[in-house]
Amino acid sequence: MAKYAIGIDFGTLSGRAAVVSLADGTELAHSVLDYPHAVMDEKLPSGRPLPPDWALEHPADYLDVLKTTIPDAMKKAGVDPADVIGLAIDFTACTMLPVKADGTPLCMLPGMEDEPHAYIKLWKHHAAQDEANRLNAIAEERGEEWLSRYGGKISSEWMIPKIWQILNEAPEIYEQADYFLEAADWVIWQLTGVQTRNSCTAGYKALWHKQNGYPDKEFFRALDPRLENLIEEKMNCPISPLGSRAGEITAESAAFTGLLPGTAVAVANVDAHVAVPAVKIDGPGKMLAIMGTSTCHMVLGEGEHNVPGICGYVEDGILPGFFGYEAGQSCVGDHFAWFVENCVPASYFAEAEKAGMNIHQYLASKAVLLKPGQSGLVALDWWNGNRSILVDVDLTGMMLGMTLQTKPEEMYRALIEATAFGTRMIVEDFNEHGVAINEFYAAGGISQKDPMMMQIYADVLNLPVYIAGTKQCGALGSAIMASVAAGSERGGYDSVFEAAQHMGKLKDEYYRPNPENVALYDKLYAEYKLLHDYFGRGANDVMKRLKQLKLSLFND
Amino acid sequence: MAKYAIGIDFGTLSGRAAVVSLADGTELAHSVLDYPHAVMDEKLPSGRPLPPDWALEHPADYLDVLKTTIPDAMKKAGVDPADVIGLAIDFTACTMLPVKADGTPLCMLPGMEDEPHAYIKLWKHHAAQDEANRLNAIAEERGEEWLSRYGGKISSEWMIPKIWQILNEAPEIYEQADYFLEAADWVIWQLTGVQTRNSCTAGYKALWHKQNGYPDKEFFRALDPRLENLIEEKMNCPISPLGSRAGEITAESAAFTGLLPGTAVAVANVDAHVAVPAVKIDGPGKMLAIMGTSTCHMVLGEGEHNVPGICGYVEDGILPGFFGYEAGQSCVGDHFAWFVENCVPASYFAEAEKAGMNIHQYLASKAVLLKPGQSGLVALDWWNGNRSILVDVDLTGMMLGMTLQTKPEEMYRALIEATAFGTRMIVEDFNEHGVAINEFYAAGGISQKDPMMMQIYADVLNLPVYIAGTKQCGALGSAIMASVAAGSERGGYDSVFEAAQHMGKLKDEYYRPNPENVALYDKLYAEYKLLHDYFGRGANDVMKRLKQLKLSLFND
Repeated sequence: MAKYAIGIDFGTLSGRAAVVSLADGTELAHSVLDYPHAVMDEKLPSGRPLPPDWALEHPADYLDVLKTTIPDAMKKAGVDPADVIGLAIDFTACTMLPVKADGTPLCMLPGMEDEPHAYIKLWKHHAAQDEANRLNAIAEERGEEWLSRYGGKISSEWMIPKIWQILNEAPEIYEQADYFLEAADWVIWQLTGVQTRNSCTAGYKALWHKQNGYPDKEFFRALDPRLENLIEEKMNCPISPLGSRAGEITAESAAFTGLLPGTAVAVANVDAHVAVPAVKIDGPGKMLAIMGTSTCHMVLGEGEHNVPGICGYVEDGILPGFFGYEAGQSCVGDHFAWFVENCVPASYFAEAEKAGMNIHQYLASKAVLLKPGQSGLVALDWWNGNRSILVDVDLTGMMLGMTLQTKPEEMYRALIEATAFGTRMIVEDFNEHGVAINEFYAAGGISQKDPMMMQIYADVLNLPVYIAGTKQCGALGSAIMASVAAGSERGGYDSVFEAAQHMGKLKDEYYRPNPENVALYDKLYAEYKLLHDYFGRGANDVMKRLKQLKLSLFND
Repeated sequence: MAKYAIGIDFGTLSGRAAVVSLADGTELAHSVLDYPHAVMDEKLPSGRPLPPDWALEHPADYLDVLKTTIPDAMKKAGVDPADVIGLAIDFTACTMLPVKADGTPLCMLPGMEDEPHAYIKLWKHHAAQDEANRLNAIAEERGEEWLSRYGGKISSEWMIPKIWQILNEAPEIYEQADYFLEAADWVIWQLTGVQTRNSCTAGYKALWHKQNGYPDKEFFRALDPRLENLIEEKMNCPISPLGSRAGEITAESAAFTGLLPGTAVAVANVDAHVAVPAVKIDGPGKMLAIMGTSTCHMVLGEGEHNVPGICGYVEDGILPGFFGYEAGQSCVGDHFAWFVENCVPASYFAEAEKAGMNIHQYLASKAVLLKPGQSGLVALDWWNGNRSILVDVDLTGMMLGMTLQTKPEEMYRALIEATAFGTRMIVEDFNEHGVAINEFYAAGGISQKDPMMMQIYADVLNLPVYIAGTKQCGALGSAIMASVAAGSERGGYDSVFEAAQHMGKLKDEYYRPNPENVALYDKLYAEYKLLHDYFGRGANDVMKRLKQLKLSLFND
């Protein structure tokens, strides 16, 4: 009898459940729900306005996803719940919330509706930058050895700065919270009735280390005496390895999902990381890039290597038995969206429509005719700062080489090339610091729809570029994790490697580097690198000074 | 009885005659003729194709201007030819041609229609770059002292490289030419029956010096033995000071212009230089910028100062008694035209139309709301290379500071500011090398229609900016010169200063620097200068390397 797993991908704006065949990873059906409250970045449901840089979500929305998309996808798939052996989810991270001891989110308690700090802080909540800066300064001053695991800097998006912001701005909320945890782990708690914490978010977002645990009390006391016992008091829960079983569907969750009680539920995972087995990556040397508005890079390594400027590495953080390394580019597709919105003349839109293309396709149809170097342009892909390897949000974009003959498609291509050069900086950084990269895998929207860009990446990196076999790597990766949580005794798999071999999806065709283009791009990359270091490493801090000046005008 | 003068401005695409009152410079009427052959940059009238970088004109077009616009303007003005006491012209330069001893252009001889080198080489004919490069190398090697008068470099647009190109590519045309001369001087020859050569083009474009004359034979022999006697053989004609009388209208030219024989005709002048008296500049410290697609800067100085990177200086080259200094920016309005054509989204055009503005006005209406520094952007205004003070056609444009929030009006303003910073580089260069600048005067299209840009220039330069009182400074300046050529005995003036006092036109309102903006622009200018020197003075020749790579691809 065929068996199935359910993978649920919780994104920034919607949740998506897929029913997947365990035999070969085929998706039988899926169902999507846009979060009713969406992202709350201007006001609370009560109308109370939020300060700049805030981004909240509502936990009820995640429950709505479970209640609607699972039954809907099951109905469409025509699958008997008895044949569904497991369920897993993946989530944005660090997306966190304060809850009571029984798991009730503080924002769902009567009288708390109007309290911003009681809600879920979404990954892109950026209002804890002050706390992040202070945390980094203190950690560096104290010589905390774990800092180098994270490329030397902690992001304001992560768990500890967000908790510290709550303590600073709403100490009564901090007081009332029995736990702070990832929304991912909270959803699993709702399904299984038991609290678990996954090693992926604990490692990448909460400074946890498999051998050493969290940072010690002295460090937390140095941040703030009230934080000294944060871990014991408000994060006290064992960390579970990825692919392990968090528990089973309870009678209560069976009632609202339509699944059978006892169905295996995996520990939660992060949306990017769960994509690694979905493209069949099973060992070192293979970098996966999830390419959308921004890009997340993951690669498996053997042993611990301090690679400067990366986001971090976590033992077993992606797949068991390996150190999972992560890096990122904060602006990829966003560049092209900005360009199309702000820099493309009407005539191009008219021509695109006439040709039956969208504007990106039309620009690409012209840009693909250019040889590397033919535009005479080079750009720095920093319209949204630089995540890796400079870890500097105050860097901004640059383009040079424009003449009166420069055309929009040339600037468009220069932006694409700039993101490829940025990726090469990351790849070389890994190579130079003990984590070898021999193959490049691409998933996410861009990988599926922009063959020109994929070829450019192959040529710039001088690596073969393999493409994910599905648009929905998150849901497929979660289904793989669900099959492992169920295990072979229930018709699943005993290891994620085995599951990925059967269920992972990679396109047959891949992009091979063109030697002529590789040689040209080596020259252009040398120029990029020179400018990258000049503007990014302190020789000329013009970008920061301009940003500072701009800021001072807004504060006037 | 009121007296009048006629000024004729020969531009790149048309000629424009104005009938002007000597009492106060009022323009009574004007008439314009577009050159029937326009600029020939792709093919000859015969259909013979032209190589890249060529730009020719047809001398018959200039005669057509005389034949049609003078009678037409006179008729519109309702002025009696007996009351017109003088005529003068101004011209683009160096715009040159080969002629026979009687003044007949070689291209108008039977059988020569198909010979490109027989035609007029327009100022922007750029196909003599090889000759210019060799000339510069030889002059530098020989330590020619005159080289420093021209900022250390001769342009391919000038007289000697253009003649040398003819010799190299069409020695038979060189042989048949009895004279090479400026089209400006040729037109005066057609009106007066005598050949004259004006000190302005001789000085700025043909390396002539009031005391030392042209470069010596040894230099010309070093270029090419066949050029040794170029001056005696093919440029042998006295040089006449500006404002002097070249001659009078002949019976023949009276017949086709409708003017009376004996009417005074001034020696020719250059369109930019003749604008100086038109805005009443009468001494040192006052820089005039003619701002259009590119900008030409002129300032009077006392004594000879070697200012690096300027176009040149000539004694009496602008007004008698002063050394006339010239500099230039090769891309000003062209930046904004490029931007509007390539980088402005359709929605902006729609909004502009709704608001009843053209797109430049609409962008300015949004850009004017920004404070200096508010966009966080800075640009280098090198979309068409840098004329002064780097004298480098291989430099290209740069912009930095872009974020995902950057708007088109911000980039538009950054380009305007970049041209203002480029002007400040020139002003400071003059100030540092003995030619003081205390006031700034603007003429040309941009000065008349872009108040935001004029205010930005006042703020960036921290100088008052005065605006020409007419859109037609060329024709007015020529009328001033005509009044001097006629002299007081005919009802004109005895000096250009006296004439300019009566006839020159300056707007009453001027732009005063805003101290708050001056302080902000000082900061932005410091950034501009740092980038200017980094990319322009050899620290990082990325622009040249990219251009070289681009060129190598085209040559593949």
